[in-house]
Amino acid sequence: MSVVVDCNYKMVYKYLMNEQKTIAALRLIRSENIGPRTFYSLVRKFGNPENALAALPEIAAKGGKKAVKICSLKDAEAELKATIKLGIKALIYDDVAYPELLKQTYDAPPLLFYRGDISLAARKQIGVVGTRNASANGCSMTRKLAVELGENDIIVTSGLARGVDTHAHKAALKTGTIAVVANGLDSVYPPENEKLFEEIAQSGLILSENPIGTNPQSRHFPQRNRIIAGLASGVLVVEAATRSGSLITADYAAREGREIFAVPGSPLDPRCSGTNFLLKNGAVLVESARDIIENLGREVQPKLFEIEDDFESENFGENFGENFGENSLQGCDFRDEIYAKLSVSPVNIDELSQQTNAPIKLVNEVLLELEIAGKLERSWGNKVRLLA
Amino acid sequence: MSVVVDCNYKMVYKYLMNEQKTIAALRLIRSENIGPRTFYSLVRKFGNPENALAALPEIAAKGGKKAVKICSLKDAEAELKATIKLGIKALIYDDVAYPELLKQTYDAPPLLFYRGDISLAARKQIGVVGTRNASANGCSMTRKLAVELGENDIIVTSGLARGVDTHAHKAALKTGTIAVVANGLDSVYPPENEKLFEEIAQSGLILSENPIGTNPQSRHFPQRNRIIAGLASGVLVVEAATRSGSLITADYAAREGREIFAVPGSPLDPRCSGTNFLLKNGAVLVESARDIIENLGREVQPKLFEIEDDFESENFGENFGENFGENSLQGCDFRDEIYAKLSVSPVNIDELSQQTNAPIKLVNEVLLELEIAGKLERSWGNKVRLLA
Repeated sequence: MSVVVDCNYKMVYKYLMNEQKTIAALRLIRSENIGPRTFYSLVRKFGNPENALAALPEIAAKGGKKAVKICSLKDAEAELKATIKLGIKALIYDDVAYPELLKQTYDAPPLLFYRGDISLAARKQIGVVGTRNASANGCSMTRKLAVELGENDIIVTSGLARGVDTHAHKAALKTGTIAVVANGLDSVYPPENEKLFEEIAQSGLILSENPIGTNPQSRHFPQRNRIIAGLASGVLVVEAATRSGSLITADYAAREGREIFAVPGSPLDPRCSGTNFLLKNGAVLVESARDIIENLGREVQPKLFEIEDDFESENFGENFGENFGENSLQGCDFRDEIYAKLSVSPVNIDELSQQTNAPIKLVNEVLLELEIAGKLERSWGNKVRLLA
Repeated sequence: MSVVVDCNYKMVYKYLMNEQKTIAALRLIRSENIGPRTFYSLVRKFGNPENALAALPEIAAKGGKKAVKICSLKDAEAELKATIKLGIKALIYDDVAYPELLKQTYDAPPLLFYRGDISLAARKQIGVVGTRNASANGCSMTRKLAVELGENDIIVTSGLARGVDTHAHKAALKTGTIAVVANGLDSVYPPENEKLFEEIAQSGLILSENPIGTNPQSRHFPQRNRIIAGLASGVLVVEAATRSGSLITADYAAREGREIFAVPGSPLDPRCSGTNFLLKNGAVLVESARDIIENLGREVQPKLFEIEDDFESENFGENFGENFGENSLQGCDFRDEIYAKLSVSPVNIDELSQQTNAPIKLVNEVLLELEIAGKLERSWGNKVRLLA
C-alpha cells in the first residue's frame, strides 16, 4: 500500500508543479508588451517564466517605461480554473506533449489550450486551407484529398472556417483531424460549425492559443494561421485568392521550411489566382494525395532562420541578476547610441551591433528592454523597428 | 530595254532553276522508304537531291532490295503543276523563305506547300494547341491568350482542328495566324472550318507537307504536330488530356529545346490532366500572355540533339561516286557484322560503331542502305531498329 500512496503523492506533486509552471507561463504571456518572441527571450535570459516575471519591472524601467502591467497571480489562477472547468486543457511550451514541429517555429505560442486527443498533434500533419467561398470543384477536391491523406495516416489540420476548412475537417473526421481556431475554446466560430466543433473535440483535436472569452478579430486569424503552418509538415492550398489568409498560411509555412502544395485551377476563376501564384513560385502541384506524400519523404528542416540564442549560455540559470546588472552598467554608454540608430523603418539587429560596436548580447538586452517598454516591434529577418 | 530583257531572262532562268530543284526534291521525298531524315542524309552525302536520286538504286541494292520505287519525273511534274494551278505554292528546304526555326529541327519537312503570306513564317510564333473538346473556360482562355499574343506581335500557330485550335486562329486572324494542316491544301478538315481556312489563306498562312489529294489519317496528325512545334519558339497547351496530340506537340517542342507553356486547370477535369502533367514536369504556368513573353526573352537553342553530320565533309560535293564505292569495298567486312548487331529493339548508332569497331561514317552508310531498302527505322536518341 505504501507504494501506491507514494506514487499518488508523486503524481499530485507533479500535477501541482505543472499547474504552477502553467500559471507562471500564463502570467508572463498575459503581461503587457509580451508576445511569443519576447516570452522566449525572457525565458532564455532568466531561465524560467517565474524569474522573468520578477525581472520585468526593472527591464521596463530601463526601456523607459515606469510601470509595466503584469498579469496578477490571482487573474492567472482564475483564468486557468475557469478554463479547466469547461473541460479545456492547457499545454505549455516545455511540456512533452507540446507539438515538436510547432515548437521549432519562430513564434510558437507559449501556451496552447485544447480539447480532444493531444496525441494527434504529435503525428504527421498537412495543413489543408483555402477560401471560405470555395467552388463546387474546390469542395470536391478538398474532400478527395482529405480522405486520401487520412488513408495514408496523415492528420488533416485546418482552421474550422467555412468552405475548404469545413470540407477538409469533415472528410478527415474518421482518420484524424485537428482544428486550430482563433476564438477561445468556449465558443464556436463560425456558429454553423458547432456540431463539427463538437465532433472534432470528441474524435479529433481542437487547439487555440487564445483564452476563453476571446471573440475572433481580424488580427487573430493570421496568428491562428501561423499555428496551422507550424504544426504541419506542409500546407496544401486548395483554392485561394492572391490576397487571402490561405496565402498567409502558405507564407508562414515557407518561412519555416515546410513544403507548399497547391491545387491548380483555371486562371479565369479568381479563387485559383492564389494557388496558381504559389505554383508559379515553386509550390508542388497537387492532383492527388500521392503528390503530397511523395514530397514529404524528407524531414522538415527549418531553413529561414534559427531562433538565435540572444543572450548566450552564461545568462541562463540562476545567476541572471548579477549578469544582467553588470551588462547594464557596461551598457550605459551604448544604450543611447543603440536607441539613436533605431527608427520606424526596420533595421537588422546584426547591423545595429556592427554600427554601434556594441556586443550583440548587449544590443539584444537593450532591445528587450525597449520591447517590454512597448517602444519596439520585431519583424522577420531579425529586424526591429521603433513603434511610432 | 536590253537591261529589262536581261533582267527578265534572269528571272525566268531563276524560276526554271527553282522549279527544277523543287521537282528533284519532290521526287526524292516521294520515293520509296525516304522520310525527311533519310532525305537529308542523302542530300548531305550526295550534295543535292538530283545526285541522290541517281544513287538510290545502288544503295537500295546494297541494303538488299532489288528495286526501289523512285518517283518519276513525270509524276513529280504533274503533281507540282496541279498544285500550282490551285494557287498553292511549294517551298523547299533550302529556300530563303523556309522558316529558320523549323529548318533546325530533327526531321523538318523537305517540302512545304502553302497558301497565304509566307513572310509570317519568319516571325516569332507560339504554337497554341489543345483539346478539340474544350470547356467554355478553355475556349475563353484560348481567345484571351491568342489576342494578347497578337497584341505583342507574336504569330499564333495552330492546327485548324476543332476546339482550342479554332478559337486560337479566330482570335488571331487580325494580328497574324498560321494553320498547319495534315491534309492536302485542296481540301479542308474539319469541313466546318472551310470559312476559317479561306480567311487564314487570305490574311494569314496555311501550311502542309502533304500533297494535294491527301485525306488526313491518324498518322498524319503527329507529323503535323511536329511542324507546329518546329515553327514556334514555344508551345502553349491550353487544355489537353494526358494522352493527346497536344502533348505530342509539347513533346516535340521540348525535344527541340523550345519552351513549353501550360494553362492550369482543375484536377477534376480530365481535359486539364495533360496541362497539369506538363506543369508538374517543368512547363511554365500561364495565366496571361505576359507569362509567355517573359519566358521568350532568350533565343531558341536546339538542345536534345544535333543533326549529326553523318558522312563528314569529304562525302559532300561531286566526287560522291568514288568515295561511296571505296567505302563500300572497305565496308564489306563490316556490313554483315553491323546487320547482325541490329534487332527490332532500338540500338544507339554510336554503340553500334563501338561494338563493331566500324567507323561511324561506315555505320551510317550501311544504315542508310538498310533504310532505303525498307528494313530499318530511325527513332529518337540517335537510335535505329530493324523493321519486323
